[in-house]
Amino acid sequence: MPERPEGAILGVDVGGTKLAAGHVVGREVAASVERPTPLSSARDLIECLEGVVGDLEKQAGPPVAIGIGIPSQIEFATGRVISSVNIPLAGIDLRHELTDHFGVPVFVDNDANCAALAEAQFVSDPPARHLVMLTLGTGVGGGVVIDGLIYRGATGLGAELGHVVVQADGPECPGTCPNHGCLEALCSGTALGRDALELAKAKPDSRLGRALAKEGKVSGRHVVEYAREGDEESLGLLEQLGTWLGVGISNMINVFEPEYVVVGGGLCAAAELFMGVAEREARSRALPALSDRVRLEVATAGPAAGIVGAGLLATHMLALADSGESNRDTHDLIANRGVQ
Amino acid sequence: MPERPEGAILGVDVGGTKLAAGHVVGREVAASVERPTPLSSARDLIECLEGVVGDLEKQAGPPVAIGIGIPSQIEFATGRVISSVNIPLAGIDLRHELTDHFGVPVFVDNDANCAALAEAQFVSDPPARHLVMLTLGTGVGGGVVIDGLIYRGATGLGAELGHVVVQADGPECPGTCPNHGCLEALCSGTALGRDALELAKAKPDSRLGRALAKEGKVSGRHVVEYAREGDEESLGLLEQLGTWLGVGISNMINVFEPEYVVVGGGLCAAAELFMGVAEREARSRALPALSDRVRLEVATAGPAAGIVGAGLLATHMLALADSGESNRDTHDLIANRGVQ
Repeated sequence: MPERPEGAILGVDVGGTKLAAGHVVGREVAASVERPTPLSSARDLIECLEGVVGDLEKQAGPPVAIGIGIPSQIEFATGRVISSVNIPLAGIDLRHELTDHFGVPVFVDNDANCAALAEAQFVSDPPARHLVMLTLGTGVGGGVVIDGLIYRGATGLGAELGHVVVQADGPECPGTCPNHGCLEALCSGTALGRDALELAKAKPDSRLGRALAKEGKVSGRHVVEYAREGDEESLGLLEQLGTWLGVGISNMINVFEPEYVVVGGGLCAAAELFMGVAEREARSRALPALSDRVRLEVATAGPAAGIVGAGLLATHMLALADSGESNRDTHDLIANRGVQ
Repeated sequence: MPERPEGAILGVDVGGTKLAAGHVVGREVAASVERPTPLSSARDLIECLEGVVGDLEKQAGPPVAIGIGIPSQIEFATGRVISSVNIPLAGIDLRHELTDHFGVPVFVDNDANCAALAEAQFVSDPPARHLVMLTLGTGVGGGVVIDGLIYRGATGLGAELGHVVVQADGPECPGTCPNHGCLEALCSGTALGRDALELAKAKPDSRLGRALAKEGKVSGRHVVEYAREGDEESLGLLEQLGTWLGVGISNMINVFEPEYVVVGGGLCAAAELFMGVAEREARSRALPALSDRVRLEVATAGPAAGIVGAGLLATHMLALADSGESNRDTHDLIANRGVQ
């Protein structure tokens, strides 16, 4: 087998507001470039992605492989975007298109999967081998690392942990999911905003009620701000969110027996207001032998987790191809590209 | 590497009432022996197991490896029984003890894991690579096959699918689990019996109420019998069970994106009374792209599934050891035993 050519591993994090690419060395980002994400069309977004990577190449040198994390359901072997809520990529064969453009192997995965892979590197040394990550943002994302690698299900659509039901007769999922009482319906920023609005309407004299009267709206940000100032109703909403999160974490412990459950996402800036409750709830429900073996942590990989995880994805896929363990499609693609 | 010696693969299914061992050839049982399970002590049970395998060897010839499925939490690498409700094996290093006795590699796993492995062989041809199995009996067991192999979590205690919560404020789990509203609390034979008793007490004039008055008790068997005769209340209890099961199945689809979800266990003798409801509920909740890719089936491997699955476990572990992919403990054990 010819030796792999030298070259950079690039990681790209496609978000709903910005698109960032970095030169990933180990678990660090050596150089990075970012731009606002064009949402007007798939063509505009792909051209922006190609431009960002092109700019990065001027600093990092030619890449040997590129990993890309996007907030969408991805059929992993083909890199086709099955569905996508916030960015206009549904139906695009992103991996093949970008492989043709860049002339090196490109791997496309769900962004929460990439984030989980990054967290596994940061949560312990040596890296965690078995980890479940939940990201609490506008929605609730999930990623699972099994034996050091991303777990995706049969075709890449699995690990939709945000749509695991914990209260079957709970509220409707605010996303495009048809479910009721799933984690996204109970622990997302959107769910917190919904609960804040309900409380503000029901209790006009409460802090949240007064904010609604004055500003015409209330959101999760109000809840966190007021909770930090000791407002009982706001603290109660975050305690309720933490309780639901804990039920979800107990499910993840009983299903996956991970070494770590990591909670990340934008809401975790306020983790001190709900993680204690979540951990107590999770440990009161999980099977004791499993609870004894798992640690619960708040994400620490930081804002570059998406870039680092996408770079690690590319690194892992190249290694799997070398060992002959990857799926045939990946292996053929890499072989055809003359990378090995 | 020296060639593997010729010899039989034996599978052993340790149940709460009987202990059965079989010579497993492919997915068939070529010969088998069974005895009642001694529950008096670990020593009695182990001696019975050794005796059953000894009797089987007279028909099958000397084994090259033995797989054993038991209804317990198993630390897979060591084969230590972490906890065990119905059989007296908690704390026993079963794998090492039996390896010493038989002088060939022995692999011990949870019985539901073995059953899932067997179902993967029977549900499709070629065998399913990604499958989730739920077994509805006295409790609710779970097994997961990923990429053709049993999934166990970090140390072997994972895939406790019966203890996944679907209704956080639901009834207490009737098992030793500290949870509320998990599948075992809602879809097990025990849960069905509990609901039947509640209904019989609340409605003394119902069919179940009259059975309680006459016989002093009601159970899941009454519910199934009366439902088959068209009793509305009994049909309603099974519809409720099917609905909860469907919520649980939707969780399994969203988490694992399997090719198949298979429902087995004793309650499945009455599958026609609840599987339709379960499938409708599951598909109404699962993410559409995932629901489109999964089939729901009732188990077909039959009563020998435990033996076949245990035999397949042994076959897989030998193959993994040959390929160098197994965990070091397994590999060393096999190497030390002179099997390769």
